[in-house]
Amino acid sequence: MELHFITGNDNKVKEARKKLSPLGYEVIQKDMDPPEIQADSLEEVAMFSAEWVRERSPTPFFLEDSGFFVDVLNGFPGVYSAYVFKTIGYMGILRLMEGIEDRDARFMAVIAYYDGNEIHLFRGEVLGRVSYEPRGDGGFGYDPIFIPDGESRTFAEMSPEEKNMFSHRGRALESFIRYLEEGV
Amino acid sequence: MELHFITGNDNKVKEARKKLSPLGYEVIQKDMDPPEIQADSLEEVAMFSAEWVRERSPTPFFLEDSGFFVDVLNGFPGVYSAYVFKTIGYMGILRLMEGIEDRDARFMAVIAYYDGNEIHLFRGEVLGRVSYEPRGDGGFGYDPIFIPDGESRTFAEMSPEEKNMFSHRGRALESFIRYLEEGV
Repeated sequence: MELHFITGNDNKVKEARKKLSPLGYEVIQKDMDPPEIQADSLEEVAMFSAEWVRERSPTPFFLEDSGFFVDVLNGFPGVYSAYVFKTIGYMGILRLMEGIEDRDARFMAVIAYYDGNEIHLFRGEVLGRVSYEPRGDGGFGYDPIFIPDGESRTFAEMSPEEKNMFSHRGRALESFIRYLEEGV
Repeated sequence: MELHFITGNDNKVKEARKKLSPLGYEVIQKDMDPPEIQADSLEEVAMFSAEWVRERSPTPFFLEDSGFFVDVLNGFPGVYSAYVFKTIGYMGILRLMEGIEDRDARFMAVIAYYDGNEIHLFRGEVLGRVSYEPRGDGGFGYDPIFIPDGESRTFAEMSPEEKNMFSHRGRALESFIRYLEEGV
Protein backbone atom coordinates (compact mmCIF):
# COMPACT_ATOMS: atom_id res chain seq x y z
CA MET A 1 0.00 0.00 0.00
CA GLU A 2 1.23 3.47 -0.87
CA LEU A 3 1.39 6.12 1.84
CA HIS A 4 2.32 9.72 1.14
CA PHE A 5 4.44 11.32 3.83
CA ILE A 6 3.90 15.09 3.68
CA THR A 7 7.23 16.56 4.74
CA GLY A 8 10.24 18.43 3.44
CA ASN A 9 12.54 16.54 5.82
CA ASP A 10 14.46 13.64 4.23
CA ASN A 11 15.59 12.27 7.59
CA LYS A 12 12.02 11.88 8.77
CA VAL A 13 11.25 9.98 5.58
CA LYS A 14 14.19 7.65 6.18
CA GLU A 15 13.05 6.95 9.72
CA ALA A 16 9.47 6.25 8.60
CA ARG A 17 10.62 3.98 5.76
CA LYS A 18 12.78 1.96 8.14
CA LYS A 19 9.69 1.08 10.14
CA LEU A 20 7.00 0.95 7.45
CA SER A 21 8.72 -0.75 4.51
CA PRO A 22 9.14 -4.13 6.25
CA LEU A 23 5.38 -4.13 6.78
CA GLY A 24 4.67 -3.65 3.08
CA TYR A 25 3.94 0.09 3.08
CA GLU A 26 5.62 2.16 0.40
CA VAL A 27 6.37 5.60 1.84
CA ILE A 28 6.39 8.31 -0.82
CA GLN A 29 7.68 11.72 0.17
CA LYS A 30 5.54 14.69 -0.85
CA ASP A 31 6.79 18.14 0.02
CA MET A 32 3.56 20.13 0.00
CA ASP A 33 4.43 22.54 2.82
CA PRO A 34 0.91 22.82 4.30
CA PRO A 35 0.23 25.87 6.47
CA GLU A 36 0.61 25.40 10.21
CA ILE A 37 -1.88 27.36 12.27
CA GLN A 38 -1.37 29.10 15.57
CA ALA A 39 -3.03 26.94 18.18
CA ASP A 40 -2.48 25.70 21.71
CA SER A 41 -1.96 22.04 20.88
CA LEU A 42 -0.03 20.00 18.34
CA GLU A 43 -3.21 18.05 17.67
CA GLU A 44 -4.98 21.16 16.39
CA VAL A 45 -2.01 22.15 14.25
CA ALA A 46 -1.65 18.68 12.72
CA MET A 47 -5.40 18.37 12.12
CA PHE A 48 -5.59 21.69 10.29
CA SER A 49 -2.58 20.85 8.11
CA ALA A 50 -4.04 17.43 7.34
CA GLU A 51 -7.38 18.92 6.31
CA TRP A 52 -5.53 21.34 4.06
CA VAL A 53 -3.65 18.47 2.39
CA ARG A 54 -6.76 16.31 2.08
CA GLU A 55 -8.52 19.04 0.11
CA ARG A 56 -5.66 19.08 -2.37
CA SER A 57 -4.50 15.48 -2.46
CA PRO A 58 -7.15 13.05 -1.24
CA THR A 59 -5.00 9.91 -1.28
CA PRO A 60 -3.88 8.28 1.99
CA PHE A 61 -1.10 10.28 3.64
CA PHE A 62 0.35 11.18 6.99
CA LEU A 63 2.20 14.16 8.37
CA GLU A 64 3.86 14.89 11.66
CA ASP A 65 4.25 17.86 13.93
CA SER A 66 6.37 18.11 17.06
CA GLY A 67 7.44 20.49 19.79
CA PHE A 68 9.22 21.01 23.09
CA PHE A 69 7.03 21.82 26.11
CA VAL A 70 8.27 23.20 29.44
CA ASP A 71 5.74 22.74 32.25
CA VAL A 72 6.65 25.73 34.39
CA LEU A 73 6.54 27.99 31.30
CA ASN A 74 2.95 26.87 30.64
CA GLY A 75 4.05 24.69 27.76
CA PHE A 76 6.25 27.32 26.09
CA PRO A 77 7.78 27.07 23.46
CA GLY A 78 5.38 24.24 22.53
CA VAL A 79 3.69 24.52 19.20
CA TYR A 80 6.02 27.40 18.29
CA SER A 81 9.26 25.59 19.11
CA ALA A 82 10.81 26.18 15.69
CA TYR A 83 10.12 29.91 15.73
CA VAL A 84 11.27 30.34 19.34
CA PHE A 85 14.45 28.42 18.56
CA LYS A 86 15.13 30.73 15.61
CA THR A 87 14.61 33.89 17.66
CA ILE A 88 15.79 33.34 21.25
CA GLY A 89 17.30 29.83 21.01
CA TYR A 90 17.73 27.32 23.82
CA MET A 91 19.72 29.93 25.73
CA GLY A 92 16.48 31.92 25.86
CA ILE A 93 14.78 28.95 27.53
CA LEU A 94 17.60 28.62 30.08
CA ARG A 95 17.39 32.32 30.78
CA LEU A 96 13.65 32.13 31.40
CA MET A 97 14.28 29.31 33.87
CA GLU A 98 17.09 30.84 35.90
CA GLY A 99 16.49 30.15 39.57
CA ILE A 100 13.52 27.88 38.84
CA GLU A 101 13.67 24.39 40.32
CA ASP A 102 10.75 22.79 38.53
CA ARG A 103 12.51 21.69 35.31
CA ASP A 104 9.90 19.24 33.98
CA ALA A 105 9.65 19.23 30.20
CA ARG A 106 8.71 16.96 27.34
CA PHE A 107 9.18 16.46 23.64
CA MET A 108 5.94 15.66 21.91
CA ALA A 109 5.09 14.52 18.38
CA VAL A 110 1.71 14.11 16.74
CA ILE A 111 1.05 12.21 13.53
CA ALA A 112 -2.09 12.93 11.51
CA TYR A 113 -3.04 10.06 9.21
CA TYR A 114 -5.66 10.30 6.47
CA ASP A 115 -6.86 6.85 5.49
CA GLY A 116 -8.87 7.97 2.45
CA ASN A 117 -11.90 8.49 4.62
CA GLU A 118 -11.06 10.25 7.87
CA ILE A 119 -8.15 11.72 9.78
CA HIS A 120 -6.67 9.95 12.82
CA LEU A 121 -4.21 11.38 15.32
CA PHE A 122 -1.37 9.57 17.11
CA ARG A 123 0.83 11.01 19.81
CA GLY A 124 4.25 10.16 21.17
CA GLU A 125 6.14 11.87 23.96
CA VAL A 126 9.34 11.74 25.97
CA LEU A 127 9.28 13.04 29.53
CA GLY A 128 12.34 14.61 31.06
CA ARG A 129 13.78 17.85 32.39
CA VAL A 130 15.60 20.98 31.33
CA SER A 131 19.31 21.01 32.20
CA TYR A 132 20.90 23.99 33.97
CA GLU A 133 23.35 24.59 31.16
CA PRO A 134 23.68 23.32 27.57
CA ARG A 135 25.70 20.13 27.17
CA GLY A 136 26.80 18.06 24.16
CA ASP A 137 27.07 18.88 20.50
CA GLY A 138 24.98 16.17 18.89
CA GLY A 139 21.37 16.48 17.82
CA PHE A 140 19.69 19.76 17.01
CA GLY A 141 17.16 22.23 18.39
CA TYR A 142 16.63 21.90 22.13
CA ASP A 143 18.63 18.66 22.43
CA PRO A 144 21.52 20.28 24.38
CA ILE A 145 19.19 21.28 27.24
CA PHE A 146 16.91 18.21 27.47
CA ILE A 147 17.61 15.24 29.77
CA PRO A 148 15.12 12.39 29.34
CA ASP A 149 13.84 10.60 32.45
CA GLY A 150 16.17 7.84 33.64
CA GLU A 151 19.24 9.54 32.13
CA SER A 152 21.81 12.06 33.31
CA ARG A 153 22.93 13.05 29.81
CA THR A 154 21.22 15.49 27.47
CA PHE A 155 19.98 14.35 24.08
CA ALA A 156 22.92 16.19 22.53
CA GLU A 157 25.36 14.02 24.51
CA MET A 158 23.92 10.79 23.08
CA SER A 159 24.59 8.96 19.85
CA PRO A 160 21.70 9.07 17.35
CA GLU A 161 21.00 5.41 18.21
CA GLU A 162 20.79 6.10 21.94
CA LYS A 163 18.62 9.14 21.41
CA ASN A 164 16.33 7.14 19.14
CA MET A 165 15.47 4.86 22.02
CA PHE A 166 13.63 7.84 23.52
CA SER A 167 12.25 9.29 20.30
CA HIS A 168 8.86 11.03 20.59
CA ARG A 169 8.69 10.75 16.80
CA GLY A 170 9.42 7.04 16.99
CA ARG A 171 6.71 6.57 19.58
CA ALA A 172 4.10 8.44 17.56
CA LEU A 173 5.13 6.35 14.57
CA GLU A 174 4.77 3.12 16.55
CA SER A 175 1.32 4.10 17.70
CA PHE A 176 0.44 4.89 14.07
CA ILE A 177 1.79 1.55 12.90
CA ARG A 178 -0.10 -0.33 15.58
CA TYR A 179 -3.25 1.27 14.19
CA LEU A 180 -2.34 0.36 10.60
CA GLU A 181 -1.63 -3.23 11.55
CA GLU A 182 -4.22 -3.92 14.19
CA GLY A 183 -6.76 -1.16 13.81
CA VAL A 184 -6.35 -0.02 17.42
CA MET B 1 -20.82 51.14 1.51
CA GLU B 2 -20.87 48.11 3.80
CA LEU B 3 -17.60 46.75 5.10
CA HIS B 4 -17.36 43.58 7.15
CA PHE B 5 -14.79 43.72 9.93
CA ILE B 6 -13.71 40.15 10.73
CA THR B 7 -12.96 40.20 14.43
CA GLY B 8 -14.22 38.98 17.78
CA ASN B 9 -13.04 42.17 19.50
CA ASP B 10 -15.76 44.75 20.13
CA ASN B 11 -13.27 47.47 21.02
CA LYS B 12 -11.56 47.17 17.66
CA VAL B 13 -14.94 47.52 15.99
CA LYS B 14 -15.69 50.68 17.97
CA GLU B 15 -12.35 52.20 17.00
CA ALA B 16 -12.88 51.37 13.33
CA ARG B 17 -16.43 52.75 13.33
CA LYS B 18 -15.25 56.00 14.87
CA LYS B 19 -13.02 56.57 11.87
CA LEU B 20 -15.02 54.96 9.08
CA SER B 21 -18.62 55.96 9.82
CA PRO B 22 -18.08 59.71 9.19
CA LEU B 23 -16.82 58.78 5.72
CA GLY B 24 -19.97 56.85 4.91
CA TYR B 25 -18.74 53.31 5.51
CA GLU B 26 -20.96 51.03 7.54
CA VAL B 27 -18.75 48.69 9.57
CA ILE B 28 -20.43 45.34 10.28
CA GLN B 29 -18.76 43.04 12.76
CA LYS B 30 -18.38 39.41 11.70
CA ASP B 31 -16.80 37.02 14.16
CA MET B 32 -15.55 34.28 11.82
CA ASP B 33 -12.40 33.38 13.73
CA PRO B 34 -10.24 32.60 10.68
CA PRO B 35 -7.15 30.44 11.31
CA GLU B 36 -3.88 32.29 11.85
CA ILE B 37 -0.87 30.52 10.39
CA GLN B 38 2.61 30.26 11.79
CA ALA B 39 4.76 32.60 9.72
CA ASP B 40 7.57 35.09 10.12
CA SER B 41 5.59 38.22 9.25
CA LEU B 42 2.22 39.71 10.11
CA GLU B 43 1.66 40.26 6.40
CA GLU B 44 1.76 36.52 5.72
CA VAL B 45 -0.56 35.79 8.65
CA ALA B 46 -3.09 38.45 7.63
CA MET B 47 -2.97 37.40 3.97
CA PHE B 48 -3.66 33.75 4.78
CA SER B 49 -6.55 34.64 7.10
CA ALA B 50 -7.99 36.98 4.46
CA GLU B 51 -7.83 34.29 1.78
CA TRP B 52 -9.59 31.92 4.13
CA VAL B 53 -12.39 34.45 4.75
CA ARG B 54 -12.67 35.34 1.05
CA GLU B 55 -13.36 31.69 0.20
CA ARG B 56 -16.23 31.65 2.66
CA SER B 57 -17.63 35.17 2.46
CA PRO B 58 -16.68 36.97 -0.74
CA THR B 59 -18.07 40.40 0.17
CA PRO B 60 -15.74 43.31 0.95
CA PHE B 61 -14.16 42.93 4.38
CA PHE B 62 -11.08 43.72 6.35
CA LEU B 63 -9.26 42.10 9.25
CA GLU B 64 -6.32 43.09 11.36
CA ASP B 65 -3.39 41.36 12.95
CA SER B 66 -0.83 42.84 15.30
CA GLY B 67 2.22 42.01 17.38
CA PHE B 68 5.08 43.23 19.54
CA PHE B 69 8.57 42.92 18.04
CA VAL B 70 11.84 43.22 19.98
CA ASP B 71 14.84 43.85 17.73
CA VAL B 72 17.55 42.21 19.82
CA LEU B 73 15.36 39.09 20.21
CA ASN B 74 15.14 38.79 16.43
CA GLY B 75 11.59 40.04 16.41
CA PHE B 76 10.37 37.79 19.24
CA PRO B 77 7.53 37.55 20.33
CA GLY B 78 6.30 39.02 17.03
CA VAL B 79 3.61 37.11 15.22
CA TYR B 80 3.17 34.92 18.32
CA SER B 81 2.73 37.78 20.81
CA ALA B 82 -0.60 36.52 22.13
CA TYR B 83 0.70 33.01 22.79
CA VAL B 84 3.95 34.24 24.34
CA PHE B 85 1.99 36.61 26.57
CA LYS B 86 -0.19 33.74 27.73
CA THR B 87 2.76 31.49 28.55
CA ILE B 88 5.72 33.59 29.78
CA GLY B 89 4.13 37.07 29.96
CA TYR B 90 5.91 40.40 29.73
CA MET B 91 8.07 39.34 32.68
CA GLY B 92 9.44 36.66 30.36
CA ILE B 93 10.46 39.36 27.89
CA LEU B 94 12.16 41.40 30.65
CA ARG B 95 13.95 38.29 31.80
CA LEU B 96 15.24 37.55 28.31
CA MET B 97 16.58 41.12 28.15
CA GLU B 98 18.34 41.30 31.50
CA GLY B 99 21.68 43.03 31.02
CA ILE B 100 20.92 43.89 27.39
CA GLU B 101 21.25 47.56 26.46
CA ASP B 102 19.69 47.48 23.01
CA ARG B 103 16.00 47.84 23.96
CA ASP B 104 14.57 48.79 20.55
CA ALA B 105 11.09 47.41 19.98
CA ARG B 106 7.93 48.17 18.04
CA PHE B 107 4.24 47.46 17.98
CA MET B 108 3.04 46.60 14.51
CA ALA B 109 -0.42 46.13 12.98
CA VAL B 110 -1.37 44.91 9.53
CA ILE B 111 -4.80 45.29 7.97
CA ALA B 112 -5.84 43.02 5.10
CA TYR B 113 -8.64 44.48 3.00
CA TYR B 114 -10.58 42.54 0.39
CA ASP B 115 -12.30 44.91 -2.02
CA GLY B 116 -14.37 42.25 -3.79
CA ASN B 117 -11.58 41.65 -6.23
CA GLU B 118 -8.20 41.46 -4.56
CA ILE B 119 -6.57 41.69 -1.12
CA HIS B 120 -4.57 44.75 -0.10
CA LEU B 121 -2.30 45.09 2.94
CA PHE B 122 -1.75 48.16 5.12
CA ARG B 123 0.75 48.47 7.92
CA GLY B 124 1.07 50.73 10.93
CA GLU B 125 3.80 50.76 13.55
CA VAL B 126 4.97 52.52 16.69
CA LEU B 127 8.68 52.58 17.41
CA GLY B 128 9.96 52.62 20.96
CA ARG B 129 11.89 50.65 23.55
CA VAL B 130 11.46 48.03 26.24
CA SER B 131 11.50 49.41 29.79
CA TYR B 132 13.73 47.86 32.48
CA GLU B 133 10.78 47.07 34.71
CA PRO B 134 7.00 47.05 34.24
CA ARG B 135 5.27 50.36 34.97
CA GLY B 136 1.63 51.45 35.01
CA ASP B 137 -1.59 49.53 35.22
CA GLY B 138 -3.49 50.75 32.17
CA GLY B 139 -3.66 49.03 28.81
CA PHE B 140 -3.10 45.34 28.31
CA GLY B 141 -0.57 42.86 26.94
CA TYR B 142 2.92 44.30 26.68
CA ASP B 143 1.83 47.89 27.44
CA PRO B 144 3.56 47.99 30.87
CA ILE B 145 7.01 47.41 29.32
CA PHE B 146 6.76 49.53 26.15
CA ILE B 147 7.87 53.18 25.97
CA PRO B 148 7.12 54.83 22.61
CA ASP B 149 9.74 57.13 21.09
CA GLY B 150 9.56 60.68 22.41
CA GLU B 151 8.06 59.56 25.72
CA SER B 152 9.38 58.50 29.10
CA ARG B 153 6.18 56.73 30.18
CA THR B 154 5.07 53.24 29.22
CA PHE B 155 1.82 52.69 27.34
CA ALA B 156 0.32 51.40 30.60
CA GLU B 157 1.03 54.75 32.28
CA MET B 158 -0.96 56.70 29.69
CA SER B 159 -4.66 57.39 29.40
CA PRO B 160 -6.38 55.57 26.52
CA GLU B 161 -6.52 58.92 24.65
CA GLU B 162 -2.79 59.54 25.04
CA LYS B 163 -1.95 55.99 24.03
CA ASN B 164 -4.20 56.30 21.00
CA MET B 165 -2.01 59.08 19.65
CA PHE B 166 0.64 56.42 19.10
CA SER B 167 -1.62 53.58 18.04
CA HIS B 168 -0.16 51.13 15.51
CA ARG B 169 -3.74 49.99 14.90
CA GLY B 170 -4.80 53.59 14.29
CA ARG B 171 -1.97 54.11 11.84
CA ALA B 172 -2.79 50.96 9.87
CA LEU B 173 -6.40 52.08 9.83
CA GLU B 174 -5.45 55.53 8.56
CA SER B 175 -3.39 54.04 5.80
CA PHE B 176 -6.34 51.80 4.91
CA ILE B 177 -8.72 54.79 4.90
CA ARG B 178 -6.37 56.81 2.72
CA TYR B 179 -6.56 53.97 0.22
CA LEU B 180 -10.35 53.81 0.41
CA GLU B 181 -10.68 57.55 -0.08
CA GLU B 182 -7.89 58.30 -2.49
CA GLY B 183 -6.93 54.95 -3.93
CA VAL B 184 -3.30 55.28 -2.82
